[in-house]
Amino acid sequence: MSKDPLVVFTPSGKRGRFAPGTPVLTAARQLGVDLDSVCGGRGICSKCQITPGYGEFPKHGVSVAADALSEWNAVEQRYEDKRGLKPGRRLGCQATVQHDVVIDVPPESQVHRQVVRKAAADRTIEMDPATRLYMVEVDEPDMHEPTGDLERLARALKAQWNIPGIRADLSLLARLQPALRKGKWQVTVALNKAHDDDVARVLEIWPGLHEDGLYGLAIDLGSTTIAAHLTDLHTGAVVASLGMMNPQIRFGEDLMSRVSYSMMNKGGDVEMTGAVREALNTLAEEIAVEGQIAPELIVETVIVCNPVMHHLLLGIDPVELGQAPFALATSGSISTDARDIGLSAINHRARLYILPCIAGHVGADSAAVALSEQPGKSEDLVLIIDVGTNAELLLGDKAGVLACSSPTGPAFEGAQISSGQRAAPGAIDAIRIDPVTKEPRYRVIGSDLWSDDPNFAAATSGSGITGICGSGIIEAVAELRMAGLLDENGLMGSAAATGTGRMVPEGRTHSYLICDASGNGGPRITVTQGDIRAIQLAKSALYAGARLLMDARGVDKVDRVVLAGAFGAHISTLHAMVLGMIPDAPLEKVTSAGNAAGTGARIALCNIGARAEIERTVRQINKVETAIEPKFQEHFVAANAIPHKTSPFAELAKIVTLPSPNFNAGSGGGEDGARRRRRRG
Amino acid sequence: MSKDPLVVFTPSGKRGRFAPGTPVLTAARQLGVDLDSVCGGRGICSKCQITPGYGEFPKHGVSVAADALSEWNAVEQRYEDKRGLKPGRRLGCQATVQHDVVIDVPPESQVHRQVVRKAAADRTIEMDPATRLYMVEVDEPDMHEPTGDLERLARALKAQWNIPGIRADLSLLARLQPALRKGKWQVTVALNKAHDDDVARVLEIWPGLHEDGLYGLAIDLGSTTIAAHLTDLHTGAVVASLGMMNPQIRFGEDLMSRVSYSMMNKGGDVEMTGAVREALNTLAEEIAVEGQIAPELIVETVIVCNPVMHHLLLGIDPVELGQAPFALATSGSISTDARDIGLSAINHRARLYILPCIAGHVGADSAAVALSEQPGKSEDLVLIIDVGTNAELLLGDKAGVLACSSPTGPAFEGAQISSGQRAAPGAIDAIRIDPVTKEPRYRVIGSDLWSDDPNFAAATSGSGITGICGSGIIEAVAELRMAGLLDENGLMGSAAATGTGRMVPEGRTHSYLICDASGNGGPRITVTQGDIRAIQLAKSALYAGARLLMDARGVDKVDRVVLAGAFGAHISTLHAMVLGMIPDAPLEKVTSAGNAAGTGARIALCNIGARAEIERTVRQINKVETAIEPKFQEHFVAANAIPHKTSPFAELAKIVTLPSPNFNAGSGGGEDGARRRRRRG
Repeated sequence: MSKDPLVVFTPSGKRGRFAPGTPVLTAARQLGVDLDSVCGGRGICSKCQITPGYGEFPKHGVSVAADALSEWNAVEQRYEDKRGLKPGRRLGCQATVQHDVVIDVPPESQVHRQVVRKAAADRTIEMDPATRLYMVEVDEPDMHEPTGDLERLARALKAQWNIPGIRADLSLLARLQPALRKGKWQVTVALNKAHDDDVARVLEIWPGLHEDGLYGLAIDLGSTTIAAHLTDLHTGAVVASLGMMNPQIRFGEDLMSRVSYSMMNKGGDVEMTGAVREALNTLAEEIAVEGQIAPELIVETVIVCNPVMHHLLLGIDPVELGQAPFALATSGSISTDARDIGLSAINHRARLYILPCIAGHVGADSAAVALSEQPGKSEDLVLIIDVGTNAELLLGDKAGVLACSSPTGPAFEGAQISSGQRAAPGAIDAIRIDPVTKEPRYRVIGSDLWSDDPNFAAATSGSGITGICGSGIIEAVAELRMAGLLDENGLMGSAAATGTGRMVPEGRTHSYLICDASGNGGPRITVTQGDIRAIQLAKSALYAGARLLMDARGVDKVDRVVLAGAFGAHISTLHAMVLGMIPDAPLEKVTSAGNAAGTGARIALCNIGARAEIERTVRQINKVETAIEPKFQEHFVAANAIPHKTSPFAELAKIVTLPSPNFNAGSGGGEDGARRRRRRG
Repeated sequence: MSKDPLVVFTPSGKRGRFAPGTPVLTAARQLGVDLDSVCGGRGICSKCQITPGYGEFPKHGVSVAADALSEWNAVEQRYEDKRGLKPGRRLGCQATVQHDVVIDVPPESQVHRQVVRKAAADRTIEMDPATRLYMVEVDEPDMHEPTGDLERLARALKAQWNIPGIRADLSLLARLQPALRKGKWQVTVALNKAHDDDVARVLEIWPGLHEDGLYGLAIDLGSTTIAAHLTDLHTGAVVASLGMMNPQIRFGEDLMSRVSYSMMNKGGDVEMTGAVREALNTLAEEIAVEGQIAPELIVETVIVCNPVMHHLLLGIDPVELGQAPFALATSGSISTDARDIGLSAINHRARLYILPCIAGHVGADSAAVALSEQPGKSEDLVLIIDVGTNAELLLGDKAGVLACSSPTGPAFEGAQISSGQRAAPGAIDAIRIDPVTKEPRYRVIGSDLWSDDPNFAAATSGSGITGICGSGIIEAVAELRMAGLLDENGLMGSAAATGTGRMVPEGRTHSYLICDASGNGGPRITVTQGDIRAIQLAKSALYAGARLLMDARGVDKVDRVVLAGAFGAHISTLHAMVLGMIPDAPLEKVTSAGNAAGTGARIALCNIGARAEIERTVRQINKVETAIEPKFQEHFVAANAIPHKTSPFAELAKIVTLPSPNFNAGSGGGEDGARRRRRRG
């Protein structure tokens, strides 16, 4: 008694017996093997490419003969002639099973393929997008059985793709009839199926087979910058990335000043809403050009942002977020049409998903960080710090996750710093101060060379040195401390007290001169006592927030620290620890996650299940409100020292014996000290 | 052992025992008694008014003491002072049960009250609107448990009103926070719950108790006229009715000429869509003024229309409806935001429902007629004819319903008639011709007097006599036939042949002169041979359509005929039967349903269950396509005679013995005959 041929699929290992003549695609579908197809087996989309293996497969207990699959056929030859197939590949809808066979499904033929994340190479995103293409053959209208074209499309999608139900908005209805007739009743539709909806939306329709793909935008909408990633919804590849400044900056540098703007100016919120929406349209237009795709192919957008940006984007006056109890209009996720926020540069029916907010100060961006970094799945206790204009903190492990926001202000971003600027070419982003000579050497964005390199001047001549950015100022403060130019209270010494002419008087205080290009019309870059105070306030707030979460959790140390945010990627963990920005942790346990919020947005864009997951997760996160917690102030004050008193780096900061217990000794005599130095030099 | 007091509600008869002190509203709810409440028992909305009965109620086995309910309380007194309560009334949320009691729920306190339909007095609409008001008390935000205001509103609606889930669009979110704070966390929301959706939409929110009601628009969008009824969604009352011309008339009188306009003019469909949408906005604005309500209180719209108007309204090019196979873009019902069709004059979040279409020629207006007239529930076989620019026919009973459309053209509406006009003041709408003298007497719209009344001239002097409308021309043709001035083939006799100087030559044919005001600069109103032909074609088409349905059903007579449409309301059934417009039926079995399509729209507006019902019904209706049915032409030709040959009125039409078998005897000599008459006179 002869058995039907055995078919083994790799890498899944799924196997089954099928009657000779069964197409490989059919076998795969019946076994639940993840083999892609857009055209539904018509031999035109080529998504179902497979590689048959021949010979002995002892592992699978199969011996595969050369005639295990049907012969190469005319459809495959046509495709080969037109586009070319990789050697050894067959079309799964054309090749039929004849004898026992082992079939490999290459990654690009899998719907749920794993995409390696750029930023964090050790994790992957599984592709399972909300919007997919389906080619379908629709019955022609019949006067004896009059039904609408939409109803026949729905019937065909149910019969051919098992789609239980569809809906279409009026603008799609207007495109339906011409597309069906132009495609001779074969069309490709882009169907969007939300994770919380049984019915799929028809976002777009094309005559025949649509071969130009589908795209989505993952947008990290920050207070200062907006970053977008144009993502291929089929492959998960990032096709283009683009950033721009948030035009709302003209209404206020930080969030609270924008809330104030809205409170002080009638219609101010509407103005700011208009500005950010316009910016998103510009960004969408430009990124489509950059990615060389038609903007209409962008059918989905995922946006992550803090609560104030969230409300301003949605057209909600953020005034309630500016005062206790910091009530959000809505904390849930937003699923709506992208056109509802005026996003007109992309497909008219494109969908928009905004992750849920965690609390009035901890927004969808933090939710995205949680989605990307998964603190709730961590075995060890992890503290995740997203440093932006405000800092958002997540502390947790499998036992639970806590969240809070800390009002660091924008000092860490280079704002409110005398020579500060945002991280852009020309900004000093790294600095070292020689503990003996007290002389600085530094690097500027745009060049890898240090300032003591002979080629440095030539390399930086393009933009010159324009200022100091967030990571630069953090390093500068930590280095000043380690070089003995700053005491633990954050007081700068005078030239006399510190013995270096780099300390220059500035009113009643002193500044450290990093470089002076004022002779050539360039800037004179110093770290002032005011800068030190700003950084001290910011780092104390950050540290106090972390301590508050640790209190709530009942721990006094964490196993590891993850720095998220673009800023986190550039910060020197050593300097951050010396500064006392973050709680104590072994240095090797302090890592950067890059733009975790942006990654979270990409995950939610590429994987529909991730949306349900983060909505669940956010509900389970315990929120700690720093503004009303009396202990916050206590921790804040205690964290003021550089480094904070319990820091393991306290010793490191004291490597240089300070000449005097009180730097003020040189105060008032600073001018003299400087003059002395010039005389000596 | 004492029992709890017995509470009997009338008219439902529901009864139960409740602990002393139970509010009447609570008792009603527990028993499932239909007692309204918007404020949820806070004593401020007054919707729960009840009337306790005192004394003996043998039927209910109860004796009610004077202290059966708690004493009149301060809340009731406050309401009484402010607005007044009808004598004997109590507030169900305030009055508590003390002893056995009989409580009457007056109709205006019932949610599901029965509303008598104006047009058809023998039927009622049960109120069960999709949108209702709910007053709710929302928890204030808590920093320790941060949730959005929307989420707390949802929680409150679930706890206080058992609403399982809500959604709100962005524009509502923008209104949410101010409303909650202004109302001190008490708000009234308008919730719309579609029949095919588990989740309710928040359409509007007001601080505190909203007392200005909710309204809906039922719109009958015809090819020629648009009629709207502003309806109170709580009481079901029609607050205002308003009609206007469809501005698309400038693109073509009838539907097919509008389809042609779209085919011949690029963008023509867009132009027509814009015109009708603008008209709807104007109508909505005006009807709100007429009804003295704020337009924002209009939160729902139901529209019924024929397929071409349907597509043009929705922004779909109707070109496919102009040619076989007459494919609709969608045949299903439409549930969408009213703003999606540009309806901006009403609430921004108002919903729009359009009934399903039955077929490419049988639209949502016919579905509305089916909803109003319920042929599928009829015991006897009913033929429903909706006469408009096209005629739609429904034939059926409990065993099943058939539908078709007949291309009557607009002659029945007075179009394509030499002196024709639409039914408006000044139009002749009724006419009688004396069978002996052949002299006419007639009535014009705007006056009840006949033209032989001494006061007629004075009564019509306002608008004068301007033309003849659809019902007028039908009567004129039938009267001409009965007066022996027209033969059964539809040929007009000359003055010589008919012996009346009213017959005047008109080229090679003759016309019947109804009146001549040309001496005073007024019109000369005649019925020409061309008019007769136009009516003959129209009535043959109508009759042939009806016959086709009867063939499909396998019958050669119907039990009754219902004439729907504004036109149907004015038509003389006797004259229609003489003309042979409709199949034979006893004269008393031919009735008018008034504007049944408009009534169907009102039903769908006031009762959410009716939407599900008509969607089911429409799927079960069997469609007959006249355009491809060879028998149609056969019936059409056979129906050409006036009256058709098998008519029981054939004898009636022959009451006057015709002077000659061929009216053409007088042809050519018409001029002479007229001259002769003048000489004689």
